[in-house]
Amino acid sequence: MPSLITLLTDFGTSDGYVGEVKGVLVSGAPGVIVVDISHEVGAQDVEGARLAVARYWRRFPKGTVHLVVVDPGVGSARAAIAVASDGRYLVGPDNGVLSPALVARDARVVALPLPAHASNTFHGRDVFAPAAALLAAGTPMEELGTPFDTPIIRRTPEARRLGDGRVLGEVISVDRFGNLITNIVAMNGGSVDIASRSLEVRRAYADVRAGELTALVGSLGFVEIAVRDGSAARTLEVGRGAPVLLHPPLGAPSSTAGA
Amino acid sequence: MPSLITLLTDFGTSDGYVGEVKGVLVSGAPGVIVVDISHEVGAQDVEGARLAVARYWRRFPKGTVHLVVVDPGVGSARAAIAVASDGRYLVGPDNGVLSPALVARDARVVALPLPAHASNTFHGRDVFAPAAALLAAGTPMEELGTPFDTPIIRRTPEARRLGDGRVLGEVISVDRFGNLITNIVAMNGGSVDIASRSLEVRRAYADVRAGELTALVGSLGFVEIAVRDGSAARTLEVGRGAPVLLHPPLGAPSSTAGA
Amino acid sequence: MPSLITLLTDFGTSDGYVGEVKGVLVSGAPGVIVVDISHEVGAQDVEGARLAVARYWRRFPKGTVHLVVVDPGVGSARAAIAVASDGRYLVGPDNGVLSPALVARDARVVALPLPAHASNTFHGRDVFAPAAALLAAGTPMEELGTPFDTPIIRRTPEARRLGDGRVLGEVISVDRFGNLITNIVAMNGGSVDIASRSLEVRRAYADVRAGELTALVGSLGFVEIAVRDGSAARTLEVGRGAPVLLHPPLGAPSSTAGA
Repeated sequence: MPSLITLLTDFGTSDGYVGEVKGVLVSGAPGVIVVDISHEVGAQDVEGARLAVARYWRRFPKGTVHLVVVDPGVGSARAAIAVASDGRYLVGPDNGVLSPALVARDARVVALPLPAHASNTFHGRDVFAPAAALLAAGTPMEELGTPFDTPIIRRTPEARRLGDGRVLGEVISVDRFGNLITNIVAMNGGSVDIASRSLEVRRAYADVRAGELTALVGSLGFVEIAVRDGSAARTLEVGRGAPVLLHPPLGAPSSTAGA
Repeated sequence: MPSLITLLTDFGTSDGYVGEVKGVLVSGAPGVIVVDISHEVGAQDVEGARLAVARYWRRFPKGTVHLVVVDPGVGSARAAIAVASDGRYLVGPDNGVLSPALVARDARVVALPLPAHASNTFHGRDVFAPAAALLAAGTPMEELGTPFDTPIIRRTPEARRLGDGRVLGEVISVDRFGNLITNIVAMNGGSVDIASRSLEVRRAYADVRAGELTALVGSLGFVEIAVRDGSAARTLEVGRGAPVLLHPPLGAPSSTAGA
Repeated sequence: MPSLITLLTDFGTSDGYVGEVKGVLVSGAPGVIVVDISHEVGAQDVEGARLAVARYWRRFPKGTVHLVVVDPGVGSARAAIAVASDGRYLVGPDNGVLSPALVARDARVVALPLPAHASNTFHGRDVFAPAAALLAAGTPMEELGTPFDTPIIRRTPEARRLGDGRVLGEVISVDRFGNLITNIVAMNGGSVDIASRSLEVRRAYADVRAGELTALVGSLGFVEIAVRDGSAARTLEVGRGAPVLLHPPLGAPSSTAGA
């Protein structure tokens, strides 16, 4: 079975930077399959990349290496790290972007040394990709660096259960369709308040008419605000950080959670 | 030989949704090669996706699985289907996006059941990708679902031959370069009328000067309107649906056809 | 080991053209791995594509086939070529886009014949992809065409050393982050003048504050102008071709070079 390296960057592809990284990967780990996740994450949007990593890192088979390069601090003293977690490996800067794997119980982390020839502006090519290739080729992670016990952890802000059973959360991301993803875990039913609107929590987009605003439970179990065949972000003119208040259905438990 | 799954979605890549789908594919069909077609189809543009599928589905070897997720009706009663056609497999929603393979003489179709755990908003991950992985791993299509005889077929509007030999068609898509692709099959020669302009049908872009508007026969045999080193869509300010009238060359047969 | 074909085009992906090309590649070279470089190069931007090729072509293992289709002259008399250089192969139009490999000492070039059935508008699918697939499948390059001794070479404009030791160069590209890449090779230290500003050449982005404009030595050894967490192109309102004057550090040699 060929080994797998997934690749998430904020490089865009038109400059050839992604090509350089891929060349290093397939040269360092002959036969490896490189799987593109995205190169269109917002430039230097560590938070957006972290939320994407949370979605996909565990969907891949054990043994997969996830390379993540969204790195506003390149060339500074921030560490470069590799992580082993739940049978997968992750490689990237120590800025919180790998947090979804760092918070797992069995996570181990090493700090990667800076190769003598490394550019100060392109650690994706010179530091992270060579480490990812070594892992994909079977090198034990502990041989790549020294144990590192203090990685930066970023967490999704937690929704807060109020005394009366309601839950106060917020929009944590806006997807391509303009859907507003919140940090409120819920089941169908009840309603949410957002931007002076009150919306029932429905089962599916298909339960509302085209152009209608609704709330529903998204694919990770969080409440989302959506417009069928439209953009909730544009309709409500809100984005990341906007407050959302859940009124749970009568008699149903609700819970709060971070990604 | 590794099996192949091609992937066309309207997800964009920055949210991690495509990553989730790819993780399901490579986990379900170990060793499979996933080939990206696009994730930049217009959001919920079933028609644009259908025209893209028409271009590529038969170019891949027999045995290839084409996964297509442009799915405005996710969570509604629309069926989820798998198709076997001309030795290839296709998986996606029953909204006409798979029509190019459905209209082949030997097409067989099954309706896929909804897994108990499926999200109501992300069938790409929970319904279509698992089915595509099973097909790529060699499961017979008939084991995935029940025969389905009434799939939705979308067709390119047909150009119409007028009594005098002229052909009345329309623009069916606009590509990245601003070329206007019509539904008129033609050979070189003759001329077309569009947006109050009359244009000779030339052999190639290179036959005209930079900035000049022309008509020519595109790579699928249809008449296209183009501006060399420019955009015909911007120059003429027309788009999908704009009428086009072909005056065939004297003595030459012309024909009409759908994609 | 599977053979590798990399793919750089200006097609975008939403029209299905890239899908057609990939289908031809995997059909013609069963088992080949296609690695996307980019499909988002500016439409018909031969210069941008050439600079990208310069970055990645040698990073891939010997035997790799690099397919490059940015081809404003499709359908004209411009030649279609294949190049063997430093153990890699490149296939594309003879418009200078393959120059980084053409200038290598051992480069050999053949002109590809036009297949009888080739479309006049899509040589990517009908001329270049079939040749790339044959090379990936092991066909000797000399069997694909006839020797071609006069390929078009494009070169990065050379920076010029002035009598007083200063170096006059220019911006040769602007990357996704708004960094201005120049043609001046330098080491850390000294300063540059651009757009009426004078900037010290620093070691890394991290040496300046967020929002601050700086010069530094980029990942290929050239001076770059950057704004930490911002866009130098927007801040200075300059682009490709803007003049840049380097004042080298006292006592240090500097040099000039093309990509």
